[in-house]
Amino acid sequence: MNIDALFAHIRSKKSFLCIGLDSDEEKIPQHLKKYQHPVYEFNKQVIDATAAFCVAYKPNLAFYECRGLFGLKELELTLSYLQEHYPDIFLIADAKRGDIGNTSKMYAKTFFEYFNFDAVTVAPYMGADSVKPFLEFKDKFVILLALTSNKSAVDFQYFTSKENKALFQEVIDRSKSWGDMDRIMYVVGATKAAVLKKIRAQIPDHFLLIPGVGAQGGDLKAVSTYGLNRRCGLLVSASRSILFAGKGEDFAAKAATEAEKLQQQMEILLKEAAII
Amino acid sequence: MNIDALFAHIRSKKSFLCIGLDSDEEKIPQHLKKYQHPVYEFNKQVIDATAAFCVAYKPNLAFYECRGLFGLKELELTLSYLQEHYPDIFLIADAKRGDIGNTSKMYAKTFFEYFNFDAVTVAPYMGADSVKPFLEFKDKFVILLALTSNKSAVDFQYFTSKENKALFQEVIDRSKSWGDMDRIMYVVGATKAAVLKKIRAQIPDHFLLIPGVGAQGGDLKAVSTYGLNRRCGLLVSASRSILFAGKGEDFAAKAATEAEKLQQQMEILLKEAAII
Repeated sequence: MNIDALFAHIRSKKSFLCIGLDSDEEKIPQHLKKYQHPVYEFNKQVIDATAAFCVAYKPNLAFYECRGLFGLKELELTLSYLQEHYPDIFLIADAKRGDIGNTSKMYAKTFFEYFNFDAVTVAPYMGADSVKPFLEFKDKFVILLALTSNKSAVDFQYFTSKENKALFQEVIDRSKSWGDMDRIMYVVGATKAAVLKKIRAQIPDHFLLIPGVGAQGGDLKAVSTYGLNRRCGLLVSASRSILFAGKGEDFAAKAATEAEKLQQQMEILLKEAAII
Repeated sequence: MNIDALFAHIRSKKSFLCIGLDSDEEKIPQHLKKYQHPVYEFNKQVIDATAAFCVAYKPNLAFYECRGLFGLKELELTLSYLQEHYPDIFLIADAKRGDIGNTSKMYAKTFFEYFNFDAVTVAPYMGADSVKPFLEFKDKFVILLALTSNKSAVDFQYFTSKENKALFQEVIDRSKSWGDMDRIMYVVGATKAAVLKKIRAQIPDHFLLIPGVGAQGGDLKAVSTYGLNRRCGLLVSASRSILFAGKGEDFAAKAATEAEKLQQQMEILLKEAAII
């Protein structure tokens, strides 16, 4: 999917919500255990209930890999279901990969060819040649970790040079020359809304993937004030707060309620910013 | 496996060689294509031919993931074969994972419980809480990326603070308090042998995983001079130079020859250092 299609989808849904499919087998409702593929059944019902309110889904690979072949089968079923029934949805592999060139090339093939995701999250630690193999796929995106939403993000991402530049700023400055907004997006932790303004000055046009609005406690209003650009430029992600809003047979309806709440806030914010 | 068992194994094999199973399906000999699981067959023959000369195998996850369920099945078969026939071998998942706490916990379960690896490579960018879930497993190891062997390692790993400290040094300094040598090892690129001396001063006791001696052109003698400690403290990894030493039916014999060459050099170096 290209940026134009993503933006058109944001305008038609009046939403820049991305739902993280961190579908923890231990947290899904009991009554789903009778299905052959319980996590797939959970995902399918969540997707059908929430697809009207979001523009992207973001399966978190760890929650599938931890159950080996069986978990990966559930991921494949989920992706096939999404690709068949919701072809407009932007699909992000939350995988945080990154390795030497010949290995990153294999990861790029994994996510862009085998699974046919639109985007994959990539860790920048190993530098340009670990990221570039992902940038060679047309209409596919690297979502590079810049500033993450976890507490320990400060450990290294705020490591500061003698020019008073933090590592995450260096990551953005260097990487923005590796590919333009048609190839690179950035992960920017919502819990750091105050720094969003600075980041927007560095990269006015790129899309930012903002996690941490749900269970991690980010602030949608602040994120939008500083993060929105003329073509939206934001994907705001929530996972646990939607997936596990309900624990019983009504889990999908409760997920829909949470997703719709976020969509409605986003609609107001998009209108205030004259984007729709 | 714990450090004592690893060291005992190094002494008995007179080797600190780790063989990377970067088993690229496109590079394995043609005659193996007739098998139901060609990459597994390739691995099995390489393992049987080289196990006498090495103490560790390091499957590179990307080369299995890129073929989805089928590739993962070949990884599982390879690991089962190793665990059954070579229970003393140290098994490293070269996966370069790292995510927020609840997700890293899932990756730790993936590699330490589901696959039963002894160690996994982890990227430090997201900080302490992204690494610590991996440290809660007894006799399992995080191998944290410090200084990698690729050219672009300089992009961020040499990002330098006003105290003139490079990021990779900061990664080592901070992380060494997260767990001792029974929990953490470090990736240090062999092609940077000159900085090994400094790194050894920072972490005299920890094991270092040194890639890049084979196809990437590192120097075993220099690495040993600066990297060996009284309990060896080194795992030197070669992948392509061993796996693809031959392209025909004699590929396993050629792999054995390359592995034995490295083992013999290592035996001399271990003796010179009075470790054996």
